[in-house]
Amino acid sequence: MNVTVRGRTRHYRTVAFDPARNAVLLIEQRLLPHEFKAIATRNFHETAAAIHDMIVRGAGAIGATAAYGLAQGARAFRGHDLQKFRRHLDTVYQTLKAARPTAVDPVNAMNGVWAAMRHGKTVAEQQQLALAAAEEFAGEDVAHCEAIGRHGARLIRSGMNLLTHCNAGWLAFVDVGTATAPMYAAQAQGKKFHVFCDETRPRSQGATLTAWELSQQGIPHRIIADNAAGHLMQRGEIDLVIVGSDRVLGRTGEVANKIGTYTKAVLAKRHGIPFYVAIPLSTIDWKLKRGFDIPIEEREAAEVLGAWGIPGDPHSAFTSRQPSRVSRHTYFRVANPASGARNPGFDVTPPELITGIITPAGIFKPRSLWGHRHQLGYVD
Amino acid sequence: MNVTVRGRTRHYRTVAFDPARNAVLLIEQRLLPHEFKAIATRNFHETAAAIHDMIVRGAGAIGATAAYGLAQGARAFRGHDLQKFRRHLDTVYQTLKAARPTAVDPVNAMNGVWAAMRHGKTVAEQQQLALAAAEEFAGEDVAHCEAIGRHGARLIRSGMNLLTHCNAGWLAFVDVGTATAPMYAAQAQGKKFHVFCDETRPRSQGATLTAWELSQQGIPHRIIADNAAGHLMQRGEIDLVIVGSDRVLGRTGEVANKIGTYTKAVLAKRHGIPFYVAIPLSTIDWKLKRGFDIPIEEREAAEVLGAWGIPGDPHSAFTSRQPSRVSRHTYFRVANPASGARNPGFDVTPPELITGIITPAGIFKPRSLWGHRHQLGYVD
Repeated sequence: MNVTVRGRTRHYRTVAFDPARNAVLLIEQRLLPHEFKAIATRNFHETAAAIHDMIVRGAGAIGATAAYGLAQGARAFRGHDLQKFRRHLDTVYQTLKAARPTAVDPVNAMNGVWAAMRHGKTVAEQQQLALAAAEEFAGEDVAHCEAIGRHGARLIRSGMNLLTHCNAGWLAFVDVGTATAPMYAAQAQGKKFHVFCDETRPRSQGATLTAWELSQQGIPHRIIADNAAGHLMQRGEIDLVIVGSDRVLGRTGEVANKIGTYTKAVLAKRHGIPFYVAIPLSTIDWKLKRGFDIPIEEREAAEVLGAWGIPGDPHSAFTSRQPSRVSRHTYFRVANPASGARNPGFDVTPPELITGIITPAGIFKPRSLWGHRHQLGYVD
Repeated sequence: MNVTVRGRTRHYRTVAFDPARNAVLLIEQRLLPHEFKAIATRNFHETAAAIHDMIVRGAGAIGATAAYGLAQGARAFRGHDLQKFRRHLDTVYQTLKAARPTAVDPVNAMNGVWAAMRHGKTVAEQQQLALAAAEEFAGEDVAHCEAIGRHGARLIRSGMNLLTHCNAGWLAFVDVGTATAPMYAAQAQGKKFHVFCDETRPRSQGATLTAWELSQQGIPHRIIADNAAGHLMQRGEIDLVIVGSDRVLGRTGEVANKIGTYTKAVLAKRHGIPFYVAIPLSTIDWKLKRGFDIPIEEREAAEVLGAWGIPGDPHSAFTSRQPSRVSRHTYFRVANPASGARNPGFDVTPPELITGIITPAGIFKPRSLWGHRHQLGYVD
């Protein structure tokens, strides 16, 4: 999407590749929203570190980063010996995989690149095929998000107030995003609407990443405390909810997503407000039979007991050029020092609270996913 | 309640009076939870400043502070001229009233003191009566909270997990508190239970004040993000919700309280979890006919866009003695600098979501308040 820094607008993808420098191009997401910085990793070790250190995050984005990282590693090999090349590739693969060991996207993405390379007869051919496959993976991620945007934009009418939770935006994918895709598509169609961003404690991805995205694209929006949505719905100030998901159960239509999603779905149902979940097909889990069995990560208490930010004056007007020098955000302790916390990272929303699942293949009732499974990429 | 500082335990009220020094004794609540400091205001100007600067906050607490402040001002007068004394008292009254111009409690409390003074024939008599009336006001506040505790403690059984929102604890009253009163009473009865404290963004009163209170009283508790309660209810981890209120409509049973209360009530209803509201009788508004007409304060955006805390290391273990030197918390900016916020401070919960209203006079169904109005202090 477009990013404007010091008055200059440029198009960026969250993840891209520069063949001339053999570099993976990323956005240093840990500095957002206070500073925008594009970086280039010079080798697969730096690419793995970027995944590990959360310079890049989000399912689609780390998948593409790992795919590009594998191609980057392949292209750095000097020589013609296929066996040595294979051993080198093993190291690259394992290094990238170990960067985020619980994530499934980097592995799936790299397996696709690996399979494509097999068709090459020489090291040079395989190097070419690796990059082509990585580019294809990234391109498909973008195409899927754009398709989600086309389907979802129909739900948005001018004058609407939307609500979204957490960040399922372009920063979490190669571009465009999922929950944000209908917004960007509707904006391109000339529709005028306003978005409430749940701040999404404890990590505040809504207040930082989603709000930054929307302000960069010029979409009117305001941040709210997670506590405020119920009141706004009561007063008729929210017309449509769109969120992303970490895992949708294809058999039941249950949706796992960032903690707090379930609460917003319950409130939306009470107020008769449509509640949609936007996902690429890779998010559908066709195996698991019960949402209750989705493992809910218990994250570190420090996230709840404090927050990351930059010191400031509550009464000063912040601008996008301020402060001039930001390194990483500082951790602040808010809570009582002697108290602990519970910090479940995700929750599960049952299908009866969900109006529809927006996919690249169209919008589906959550309980109808299984019936459409062959259209939705299910493999027996 | 008891406060332990550097291993030494002492009993404090949130607001008290020292006749020998003619001083109002307060707790510097702006330093909590990171530092405990008791202060004494030396004259009514300092007392008014303490209300204005939020050293003391909470309906019952600022009422008692203003009542003591009026007595303090009266007792500082030197001379026997009743007319001069009256003019002096006018200044004291107006100064204390202006400290928090929208609050009704300081005015009501001071009017009670003023009325009691009229029975005195000399300045000295009126000075004595003023202090006696202020002490009576504070004593009644405590007695009411204790009565709430007796009634509410019946709802708590050993092994329960409670949830509370914001701070309706002893720091908001003269002592004991309202939502916390049943917890303290149940603890005194030997019941063992655990409390989840909603952090209560944007001002985090749950994470700071309620968590501090419960840790000081040795009640097991953990802080959760406001997003987490829905998930915990889904998993059967919450048995009972008790919150306070800023205003309960006697005619309809609607409850205005800190933003996010409505959301918790909706979730509790869905999961069949009892939801109680604990209040003194002074919180009941017998006039207003519709909850929709309760003015909802829109607070400053900075509260949502950031938070107050102290810089720290997320991975270090905090202790109650750390850090050694805290002044006021620092404001830090979390959100995207170019984004604004909506910040409604309160919401309104309808009576069908409320199991009962815990008052000093017993527990009532919210819709039955009007029928019991004469028992509940209604004056035609």
